[in-house]
Amino acid sequence: MITRAKEKICEVKDFPKPGIGFKDITPLVEDATCYNHVIDKIASWAKDREPQIVAGIEARGFLFAAPVAHRLGLGVAIIRKKGKLPRETVCVRAPNEYAVEYFEMHSDSISHSQRVLIVDDLIATGSSSISAIDLVKKLGGDVVGFASVVELLFLKGMDCIKKAHPDVDVLSLIQFEE
Amino acid sequence: MITRAKEKICEVKDFPKPGIGFKDITPLVEDATCYNHVIDKIASWAKDREPQIVAGIEARGFLFAAPVAHRLGLGVAIIRKKGKLPRETVCVRAPNEYAVEYFEMHSDSISHSQRVLIVDDLIATGSSSISAIDLVKKLGGDVVGFASVVELLFLKGMDCIKKAHPDVDVLSLIQFEE
Repeated sequence: MITRAKEKICEVKDFPKPGIGFKDITPLVEDATCYNHVIDKIASWAKDREPQIVAGIEARGFLFAAPVAHRLGLGVAIIRKKGKLPRETVCVRAPNEYAVEYFEMHSDSISHSQRVLIVDDLIATGSSSISAIDLVKKLGGDVVGFASVVELLFLKGMDCIKKAHPDVDVLSLIQFEE
Repeated sequence: MITRAKEKICEVKDFPKPGIGFKDITPLVEDATCYNHVIDKIASWAKDREPQIVAGIEARGFLFAAPVAHRLGLGVAIIRKKGKLPRETVCVRAPNEYAVEYFEMHSDSISHSQRVLIVDDLIATGSSSISAIDLVKKLGGDVVGFASVVELLFLKGMDCIKKAHPDVDVLSLIQFEE
């Protein structure tokens, strides 16, 4: 089934910039069987880690974080790009393959020592993943796992995440060699 | 429980512009009980309408559309702001309270006569909701319902939606008088 889910992801060349091969997950989330299988796989991996809340990263990350939270009977803490959240926030630098962005969460989104599972769509260079973990930790959260649907192996993001946050277990479901 | 969910929504004055009272749903989605109740309510309203896919509107809309889809065992068709989707899209004008934006979907996201439930976080003036329904119809979808978590009654968006799309059943769970 993961093989079938992988086949649903299509590569779009030169998006959003020349030279970038964009992995488009929209056909995967449109496919009920593949989508729900991916959600179930992440939820079942996360369950033993006993998260108390799921953190999701805007915008595609919400497509996976929110149903995983629902599956586990939890709420969602929201990580957004700078300027979108209306109240007091904590902010971290979040460089990605295309640009330097900033991630923000409301200061009260995570309580001290709360067990947090972070869910995102993609691990590329690992920079955004590291920034998201940084941010949750900055808010006092205990990151019990980071789950991503896709991993681009050739960018070696997993190594970077492990180096920056050796205490965090990381899952990726679908890997691309190129 | 809907009363409790309503209490979780906090109003932030003058965001994102002076004069706007922004309804912040982040405390609601962080609260496991309220969040999951809201998802269950939308899913149970939608079930009898026999949707075949759920359409979600970027970004906060994804927080509700995705778990409703999971709950119903369906996939999610994605409505994004202009320029975010990598393949051939269909586009509609989507003015809101703050600015004129454009909504896009991949041309192949909805199949002809597919039964589509649209889920969003908020009905304000109704303009974005109407644009989302326009877009799904333009792709050939049959909109079997539009569900929103919050409705700002004083902006009379529901009347505008009913006028533009009298064939579409609309649900809002939490209403604000002001």
